[in-house]
Amino acid sequence: MKILILNGPNLNLLGRREPDVYGNEGFDTYFQSIAKRFSDIELEYFQSNHEGDLIDKIHDVGFSYDGIVFNAGAYTHTSIALHDAIKAVKTPVVEVHISNVMSREQFRHTSMIAPACKGTIAGFGLDSYRLAIEAIIGMNN
Amino acid sequence: MKILILNGPNLNLLGRREPDVYGNEGFDTYFQSIAKRFSDIELEYFQSNHEGDLIDKIHDVGFSYDGIVFNAGAYTHTSIALHDAIKAVKTPVVEVHISNVMSREQFRHTSMIAPACKGTIAGFGLDSYRLAIEAIIGMNN
Amino acid sequence: MKILILNGPNLNLLGRREPDVYGNEGFDTYFQSIAKRFSDIELEYFQSNHEGDLIDKIHDVGFSYDGIVFNAGAYTHTSIALHDAIKAVKTPVVEVHISNVMSREQFRHTSMIAPACKGTIAGFGLDSYRLAIEAIIGMNN
Amino acid sequence: MKILILNGPNLNLLGRREPDVYGNEGFDTYFQSIAKRFSDIELEYFQSNHEGDLIDKIHDVGFSYDGIVFNAGAYTHTSIALHDAIKAVKTPVVEVHISNVMSREQFRHTSMIAPACKGTIAGFGLDSYRLAIEAIIGMNN
Amino acid sequence: MKILILNGPNLNLLGRREPDVYGNEGFDTYFQSIAKRFSDIELEYFQSNHEGDLIDKIHDVGFSYDGIVFNAGAYTHTSIALHDAIKAVKTPVVEVHISNVMSREQFRHTSMIAPACKGTIAGFGLDSYRLAIEAIIGMNN
Amino acid sequence: MKILILNGPNLNLLGRREPDVYGNEGFDTYFQSIAKRFSDIELEYFQSNHEGDLIDKIHDVGFSYDGIVFNAGAYTHTSIALHDAIKAVKTPVVEVHISNVMSREQFRHTSMIAPACKGTIAGFGLDSYRLAIEAIIGMNN
Amino acid sequence: MKILILNGPNLNLLGRREPDVYGNEGFDTYFQSIAKRFSDIELEYFQSNHEGDLIDKIHDVGFSYDGIVFNAGAYTHTSIALHDAIKAVKTPVVEVHISNVMSREQFRHTSMIAPACKGTIAGFGLDSYRLAIEAIIGMNN
Amino acid sequence: MKILILNGPNLNLLGRREPDVYGNEGFDTYFQSIAKRFSDIELEYFQSNHEGDLIDKIHDVGFSYDGIVFNAGAYTHTSIALHDAIKAVKTPVVEVHISNVMSREQFRHTSMIAPACKGTIAGFGLDSYRLAIEAIIGMNN
Amino acid sequence: MKILILNGPNLNLLGRREPDVYGNEGFDTYFQSIAKRFSDIELEYFQSNHEGDLIDKIHDVGFSYDGIVFNAGAYTHTSIALHDAIKAVKTPVVEVHISNVMSREQFRHTSMIAPACKGTIAGFGLDSYRLAIEAIIGMNN
Amino acid sequence: MKILILNGPNLNLLGRREPDVYGNEGFDTYFQSIAKRFSDIELEYFQSNHEGDLIDKIHDVGFSYDGIVFNAGAYTHTSIALHDAIKAVKTPVVEVHISNVMSREQFRHTSMIAPACKGTIAGFGLDSYRLAIEAIIGMNN
Amino acid sequence: MKILILNGPNLNLLGRREPDVYGNEGFDTYFQSIAKRFSDIELEYFQSNHEGDLIDKIHDVGFSYDGIVFNAGAYTHTSIALHDAIKAVKTPVVEVHISNVMSREQFRHTSMIAPACKGTIAGFGLDSYRLAIEAIIGMNN
Amino acid sequence: MKILILNGPNLNLLGRREPDVYGNEGFDTYFQSIAKRFSDIELEYFQSNHEGDLIDKIHDVGFSYDGIVFNAGAYTHTSIALHDAIKAVKTPVVEVHISNVMSREQFRHTSMIAPACKGTIAGFGLDSYRLAIEAIIGMNN
Repeated sequence: MKILILNGPNLNLLGRREPDVYGNEGFDTYFQSIAKRFSDIELEYFQSNHEGDLIDKIHDVGFSYDGIVFNAGAYTHTSIALHDAIKAVKTPVVEVHISNVMSREQFRHTSMIAPACKGTIAGFGLDSYRLAIEAIIGMNN
Repeated sequence: MKILILNGPNLNLLGRREPDVYGNEGFDTYFQSIAKRFSDIELEYFQSNHEGDLIDKIHDVGFSYDGIVFNAGAYTHTSIALHDAIKAVKTPVVEVHISNVMSREQFRHTSMIAPACKGTIAGFGLDSYRLAIEAIIGMNN
Repeated sequence: MKILILNGPNLNLLGRREPDVYGNEGFDTYFQSIAKRFSDIELEYFQSNHEGDLIDKIHDVGFSYDGIVFNAGAYTHTSIALHDAIKAVKTPVVEVHISNVMSREQFRHTSMIAPACKGTIAGFGLDSYRLAIEAIIGMNN
Repeated sequence: MKILILNGPNLNLLGRREPDVYGNEGFDTYFQSIAKRFSDIELEYFQSNHEGDLIDKIHDVGFSYDGIVFNAGAYTHTSIALHDAIKAVKTPVVEVHISNVMSREQFRHTSMIAPACKGTIAGFGLDSYRLAIEAIIGMNN
Repeated sequence: MKILILNGPNLNLLGRREPDVYGNEGFDTYFQSIAKRFSDIELEYFQSNHEGDLIDKIHDVGFSYDGIVFNAGAYTHTSIALHDAIKAVKTPVVEVHISNVMSREQFRHTSMIAPACKGTIAGFGLDSYRLAIEAIIGMNN
Repeated sequence: MKILILNGPNLNLLGRREPDVYGNEGFDTYFQSIAKRFSDIELEYFQSNHEGDLIDKIHDVGFSYDGIVFNAGAYTHTSIALHDAIKAVKTPVVEVHISNVMSREQFRHTSMIAPACKGTIAGFGLDSYRLAIEAIIGMNN
Repeated sequence: MKILILNGPNLNLLGRREPDVYGNEGFDTYFQSIAKRFSDIELEYFQSNHEGDLIDKIHDVGFSYDGIVFNAGAYTHTSIALHDAIKAVKTPVVEVHISNVMSREQFRHTSMIAPACKGTIAGFGLDSYRLAIEAIIGMNN
Repeated sequence: MKILILNGPNLNLLGRREPDVYGNEGFDTYFQSIAKRFSDIELEYFQSNHEGDLIDKIHDVGFSYDGIVFNAGAYTHTSIALHDAIKAVKTPVVEVHISNVMSREQFRHTSMIAPACKGTIAGFGLDSYRLAIEAIIGMNN
Repeated sequence: MKILILNGPNLNLLGRREPDVYGNEGFDTYFQSIAKRFSDIELEYFQSNHEGDLIDKIHDVGFSYDGIVFNAGAYTHTSIALHDAIKAVKTPVVEVHISNVMSREQFRHTSMIAPACKGTIAGFGLDSYRLAIEAIIGMNN
Repeated sequence: MKILILNGPNLNLLGRREPDVYGNEGFDTYFQSIAKRFSDIELEYFQSNHEGDLIDKIHDVGFSYDGIVFNAGAYTHTSIALHDAIKAVKTPVVEVHISNVMSREQFRHTSMIAPACKGTIAGFGLDSYRLAIEAIIGMNN
Repeated sequence: MKILILNGPNLNLLGRREPDVYGNEGFDTYFQSIAKRFSDIELEYFQSNHEGDLIDKIHDVGFSYDGIVFNAGAYTHTSIALHDAIKAVKTPVVEVHISNVMSREQFRHTSMIAPACKGTIAGFGLDSYRLAIEAIIGMNN
Repeated sequence: MKILILNGPNLNLLGRREPDVYGNEGFDTYFQSIAKRFSDIELEYFQSNHEGDLIDKIHDVGFSYDGIVFNAGAYTHTSIALHDAIKAVKTPVVEVHISNVMSREQFRHTSMIAPACKGTIAGFGLDSYRLAIEAIIGMNN
């Protein structure tokens, strides 16, 4: 079973950026712990601040992997191109957010990618990623 | 550890109602399987079509339980009173939806209760409830 | 043939409430005359000011009766839960209004339940109920 | 008693046009059956695709007939001129629609003529016309 | 002189709920002090989280009492049914709010019941209730 | 000097239609009085309920007459085609309204033709037409 | 017969300000010519850039003069206070504009004062003022 | 204890202006009666039609008086400058309205100053001022 | 192969009307050149300023011709009746515009007929018609 | 003559992606056939999922080529940067779409790039590209 | 070289008013320091809470001074009259704000005067004024 | 002291692109002159048409430089990702625009990045960059 964890813009700064919203832990540390936890799954991690890179990556894995856990960051609220990329592939995509986006600024309340995703998990800090992997496992049972 | 699963309007018809959207399984059957799975947690189930009953129930358990898994059904999109009830209590509430509400009618895209909840899990069928329990367990670690 | 006439909030005050909009006749008097007129149909009457009661009633009769004549009163304009209840059952529902709602305040121009109903009859005073029964009879021919 | 059945744009194609929405029966056939049913009423039928013709016709009969059953077709949603024509005459006008317009495209949810009409009947297929005639009869009792 | 103090959803939690917005005092304590202050008025207190209960209560007292002091809580912003109930009775209703609703979230800026009420008093903490009683006394001089 | 007075839909009913809004005088009577008053001007009068007829008429006279006094009635608020017709010709067009449209229903507050006209005169009853002729005379001095 | 010509903000710069929109003539020169033309009417002229001064002036003359010709300039589009002032007095007010406001920026398309005025004359350059005086004379015949 | 009663535009016409909305009593008469009633409070009265005067007055008393009872009239709905003035001073301001603004025109439903005020009292006729004074007294107990 | 070129309101003035937007060539001249170019296709040309005529024409040819090239002019932006007419027939319709409508006024940015058409060609001057014929030919290969 | 065919995000998946909307043919195959058809034109093809790459490419060829046929994919609806890039160069750009975007989701109805393009061709499947080349050829005659 | 620094409503309270937003320094102190810094420029300072005074002042200096540095305070967001005043004069006007208005309340995000100004400088505290003077100097080089 | 000048999409074409809006000078020439002027500051220049590159660059310098002068070009109006990038770093960012964006198309009036920046300078041509550097220097005094 192969799952891609895909992070969008500014998530490379996790741990340094607005710690009251996003917490203190960098994503690399977290990824190691989660890779250990799901040791029977082939987990891959990719981050980019480039919308085009994210589209390319979805195309690359989207016909062979079993799932994509996708935190599209700010592109969540504006990118129809990512919506189309998700819809264009076969692999199910789970939208995740670290914070509860609905309790933040108005412009974060819209998700352009949600209608193309399988489902959404938001608001549980980094634990949202774990739950998304659980969700993908659940889809295969 | 005590968790309430709280279902809002029309969810009593699960299994009979629009099976292409909500599936064929009745909630009682599902509840038994999930109660077995999380046998170390005290799980309680309550359903009502009455907004006021849901508020009363949140008040009742909201200062003593460890979590509420809440599918507010159609009240999700309109009820400020439930928003206030969730905010008024101490127990964390996790919003769940069986379907991916963002890919349905426009009037289901707004959640009045999301800003008051801890987080949201939507789109994974009945498995959304299991993930929400996992999320509450995650909060206590 | 069994038909439920279902009245929502404030319709119990008919005859006492804003007589220039809703007329002077109480609904009980009217119900007796209409029951006499359609003596070969089993007509039942239920009124409640509680949204939850209306949902419960629709669930109760919605898999066995031949039709529901439903004046949802003010809930017409706001209740997605009633929309879902109507959609969840098998019995066809006809929306009725005593007054011509489109010539009243702006907030009465939207019907949340209309898309889930079979059809709508509005503006003919209490005679709207008779026409709705005629419509249900017409569906069965 | 004289009643005009007035049909607006594209209703001449009934039976040929989008049969899943409007049914297979042409209006002429239907008109004959309904004229037979209400044999004690002088029923007249007029159809035009021209907004101006519809206004002219309303003016012509609107001070002498007992009722107009009016399916304004697509002009329903845009024509203030028809609104004004209806308001300008004495004969009561009943708005009818074959389909349940509220469950179709957003731009069909607004009726510019409804506030000027006596009432509305929508969603019962061609039977909507019969019910409208019944409604006019009801007004004269 | 008989006046009903009617409290809507979540106001039973007063003193426990968000004390920085609503203060520390429970409503029962406050009611006793205010009943003492206006000892020549028959004051009654009723609270419910159920919209339908509030409508029923307004119907019950709305043709005999001299005034209703009504804090509809979150239903203020959404309930057309309460608007209709207030309009349907004879007793004047005064809308009250503990907090200054206009300085809170956008969705609290609209009052569906205000147009049906005699007047509004908002922002003075629990003292808003006393001022509302004064207002009703003022109407009778 | 040649001026066309052009009246749109329902203005043929003037004197019969909603006299509290439009007055009791029929337009023919008024036209005779105004033709007498401006005896040195060649005044022509044309009315139609057909949008297409109004466009045709504007095309016919719009390259030779000295002015058009145009009451587009309800088409004022919706017709881009009339806007284009006015813009397409050389003759200056003055928009007139009998009533003060800005104090009536919301949907009468927009004028699609105003931006294409030379100017607007509204609210002076039938005297609006005389003022419009005066305005055209003023343009030629 | 006494008529006030009332000019609002920036109209003192007429002749100097954006001549392609407002023309080259200063208002004083124009006022002298118009006063000569209507020599049997007592014409008064007042201009201010202060909203409060305009309100004061309307109060001063609004119970004794026969008409006010009012170009409210930019206050046209925003001032509810001027709307109220016009409604509060007895003298009929005619709204005038030099340019055709409907063909300019979007924010000039709304008139807050129009619903309170007798009528509107716009787009005829300075001749709009003469026509407004004619209109007031017309009201008194 | 010193309290300013501050009245905005057109309130000088009270008693003469639209008596069905605002009543027949002039404000001076009312002020004398209220000054007598609260004889132990130093009451001052100021009215102006000028937004700038109202701002100046709030600045003048806003660091020394105990309260301002402010009816901003039409400026209520548009003035951010008054909002800022109220926020800039120390004295608590109570917004009052004679009529129930929420049951009038749409453009009166917004209050720009409410978020900056302590609270709001509306709809009780001139008695709204007395209640506002009571509210300020209540704040000091 | 039979194709109708159908022109809507004001297009009869082509060559005379706003030449900077629509060019100097009259449509008749252009039609002759295009008929020569596609000499193996039976090309028919019809123009009307009447919405009803355009609907009638679409009905007439819409079950037998191979294509309709339709420039609906200003009706493009408002006519649901034309939308319905296009949807009601079998012949594919190609929407054309001479100018680039998206770079003109806001109210020209919406096309009510586009969703019912096969495709759209806009902005190439009169050459848009040739391209539309090419498109219809392309559909038949 | 040199023309660039420029494809935006997700168009590399053509033939694999949502075949009911976009067809089964990959773009490379199509490009070969079209290059053969227009053998006297130097046709170049470039695709990228990166908004920045598309801008760079437009800059590169935009001062020397004779035309750009541009399918901006999902960036059509959001990219002001592409609008600016098109406006910044000299080469005329023709917007193309494979599907009829106006009959799809609401968020695809807006084109940010259309106002900067020469014209638009949409809805003819891959044939839209051929028609766009024809359009560019037409511009040079 | 002559430059006017023009301050609008509530800026006279600078140093006393909301110091966390606007700082502790009064404007007079600041003006002295800036006058010293630009000793070769004739700097004049004027403040008023009256919209009309600000218009008058712009008219007074707007044909002779070299620049106006204008902080319109709350009038920024609502005053079309100031927009017109700026446009009516010859002197270039630079809009300044002390705070970053775009990060404050929604109603401060619109500037009615910006389109009429030369440019905008916002967010640098009192230093915004110095930068505006630098900008005006820059325009004259 | 180190300052980055960061230019977004299409600004590489400065001097070639729409010279009436952006001037004739290329940015490289300008950068040399400004680097000479502020010879005691380490000025760096970076331009990209790629949103991701701009984010990467902000991350790179955003924890060590003293300021970023950022002209985000068209991304200003749409990019939440840049908003987040600016907020995520420590270095203060000053938003600049060459033209007065508020006097251009409606879609340029919104700045998604402004709320995250320290301040904004717009409308002074290339001199906006110099003023921004001055502003950063001012922040350090």
